[in-house]
Amino acid sequence: MINFKSYAENFISEPDYLEKLETAKTLMSRLQQDPMSGWVDLPIDYDKPEFARIKTAAKKIQQDSKYLVCIGIGGSYLGHKAVIETLGENSPTKILYAGNSLSPLELSKIIDQLGDADFSVNIISKSGTTTEPAIAFRIFKQKLIEKYGKAAASKRIYATTDASKGALHSESVENGYEMFVIPDNIGGRYSVLTAVGLLSIAVAGIDIDKLMDGAEEERATLISDGGNAAEYAALRNVLLDHNFNIEILANFEPSFLYFNEWWKQLFGESEGKNGQGIYPASVIDSTDLHSMGQYIQDGRRNLFETFVKIREYISDIDVPVMETNLDDLRYLEGKGLNYINEQAQAATRAAHLSGGVPVLEITMPDISARSLGALIYFFEMSCALSGFLLGVDPFNQPGVEAYKNNMFHLLGKPGHK
Amino acid sequence: MINFKSYAENFISEPDYLEKLETAKTLMSRLQQDPMSGWVDLPIDYDKPEFARIKTAAKKIQQDSKYLVCIGIGGSYLGHKAVIETLGENSPTKILYAGNSLSPLELSKIIDQLGDADFSVNIISKSGTTTEPAIAFRIFKQKLIEKYGKAAASKRIYATTDASKGALHSESVENGYEMFVIPDNIGGRYSVLTAVGLLSIAVAGIDIDKLMDGAEEERATLISDGGNAAEYAALRNVLLDHNFNIEILANFEPSFLYFNEWWKQLFGESEGKNGQGIYPASVIDSTDLHSMGQYIQDGRRNLFETFVKIREYISDIDVPVMETNLDDLRYLEGKGLNYINEQAQAATRAAHLSGGVPVLEITMPDISARSLGALIYFFEMSCALSGFLLGVDPFNQPGVEAYKNNMFHLLGKPGHK
Repeated sequence: MINFKSYAENFISEPDYLEKLETAKTLMSRLQQDPMSGWVDLPIDYDKPEFARIKTAAKKIQQDSKYLVCIGIGGSYLGHKAVIETLGENSPTKILYAGNSLSPLELSKIIDQLGDADFSVNIISKSGTTTEPAIAFRIFKQKLIEKYGKAAASKRIYATTDASKGALHSESVENGYEMFVIPDNIGGRYSVLTAVGLLSIAVAGIDIDKLMDGAEEERATLISDGGNAAEYAALRNVLLDHNFNIEILANFEPSFLYFNEWWKQLFGESEGKNGQGIYPASVIDSTDLHSMGQYIQDGRRNLFETFVKIREYISDIDVPVMETNLDDLRYLEGKGLNYINEQAQAATRAAHLSGGVPVLEITMPDISARSLGALIYFFEMSCALSGFLLGVDPFNQPGVEAYKNNMFHLLGKPGHK
Repeated sequence: MINFKSYAENFISEPDYLEKLETAKTLMSRLQQDPMSGWVDLPIDYDKPEFARIKTAAKKIQQDSKYLVCIGIGGSYLGHKAVIETLGENSPTKILYAGNSLSPLELSKIIDQLGDADFSVNIISKSGTTTEPAIAFRIFKQKLIEKYGKAAASKRIYATTDASKGALHSESVENGYEMFVIPDNIGGRYSVLTAVGLLSIAVAGIDIDKLMDGAEEERATLISDGGNAAEYAALRNVLLDHNFNIEILANFEPSFLYFNEWWKQLFGESEGKNGQGIYPASVIDSTDLHSMGQYIQDGRRNLFETFVKIREYISDIDVPVMETNLDDLRYLEGKGLNYINEQAQAATRAAHLSGGVPVLEITMPDISARSLGALIYFFEMSCALSGFLLGVDPFNQPGVEAYKNNMFHLLGKPGHK
């Protein structure tokens, strides 16, 4: 379903690549034995009753709430934001995102937007004690209680958290919040197809069955030997061996901005450790051809580019016919923007290649829930295999504690003097 | 007004830095002789009658338009979007951005949002023939004519373009659009404080006098020998000599997202040439501490980080007091989010330093038009000096033509076979 093509042959040696690819294929069994590989079989082995409860909860929220305030950070934020922004909202309930920064300015904007409207809260936190979401949850919980009273407020709080322990779990049981589970064997950045992402996505009016179907289809393609996800993983590592240590994910649809942010977390947090990794960066073209384009074409030659291409579009807009041709666009009159955008992408690929940038290309069938589910799974699989090839654990994130410990110390948190 | 501080002393040699700093200072005279240095004296030498016309046009637009569709790409887009997003809109007229991609999906979103509301168009293009804005201009011009008739439509089109030539200039003269000037001696990425940025910014309700005042004040500080902009420029280049070839601009206010994008264009397009440059990247914390934080703390050690710090805030929100302490936040009760955010920033700086990341820090007084004007000028000056130090021309962008030539060929544009 997801196609992968390399244009990087002039930048690498074929035997190096084939050797790396063979290794990647053998890593599939190691992956499936990893205690954090719960996402691998998730598309065929998810909790069906919980999935049904998510759909029921989404319908209730769409009926009683103008807004759903989704509180979460990192892996409890980027996945559903990515899917919702890419596919667009199609729901009476608008999604707002809180608890992903410490800025009171941002918090005020959300509070202002809520106004007097009916709303519900989706709090997503494994522990319930992560600073940013915990603070936001206090604030929006208080607002719910003020507006609806304690009992009714509890009916408007949906908690996605640990199955059996932690602060949010305890509070949810005590107050009777509807609860969903963050599985123990799926890390945050691999969790978008669990309840972590699915409730918000369903409330936004996106078909989560199709999202899962796409992931299931992609899993079937990749599960035996990693398929083209192994090819992508192998090529990234061979390019890194040749000192291409920045990867730019390039997309020609602005709605993919947050999808690229999700991808940056996936690869950056999985591989950036022990002084290693490929720095994950992102551009949205053709916008960024007019800002970062110069650097990519002609700057330091330590970067490679991975294009995401979309094969078919549902709707289009044609360049209007005008009487005058002052703007020199006559040759485009009556042509569809999708066609022009596609030529821009092909032109950019060729230009960057000739400028010394190795180019990889990932093609998805269209912009749909099914295709996006497949793309998510493709990237998760690629990332895990790529991390193993690099020699790191793609499922841990030991480095994120350093600033937290400093911060707790500075803020005088008990036990952190 | 803008403070600069280096925490990078353990990563560089002091004599190397001092030598580079001396060179940077001597480059000020070269800068002022450069034909593209029009932005240097702009804050004290701008076209006052045009400035007054911008304010008058902004008032008219605020009175007769619910939306202003700003059409432009690259330097004709990112500057005003950066300022408007950072400071927030405070106007009856909402700003929309078009012509910055080739996606019909994005175009449809803008058309849907416009609905039947009154609107005007701000078209910003030096030549008038850049593909993306030229296409968008055809579409929104057609909509204006359909809605208001040709004569009244022309009164709702504002054109910022070349002073005397080009397609958009000719069309504007012919149809009587109100015109503003893109100066010949100021490149796109240095043009936000010209009409290129100012009309949109004024319509958004931001005080453009204060923006210019801030730039003027900063100019006075830097103009003799580059001041701390020369320090920043020198340090970047010394760090690059030590193989730190990725710079991450880190901001703890989400509203700076597009300011960071503007900064990426400024530095990336100015320095990324002849196989050289520092790759400009961006994070918005604390959000991205939960996604890119792992990589920055513990990944490949070829990156340095430049923090933007805000000294004072106008408004705040306190952590609410709760009966229970399940979420472990008692120690923060009654404390302001700004204080907590500030501690997070200090904690991050210390953590990344100890993880092997050289850190620089730029402090602005507050989030205001005056301070942002100063920060813009500071970065422009730093960027020009840094480019000279690197040995490139910080005012050209030869590489952006490569993909365009390919694209014109693929699209069959006459003369590009």
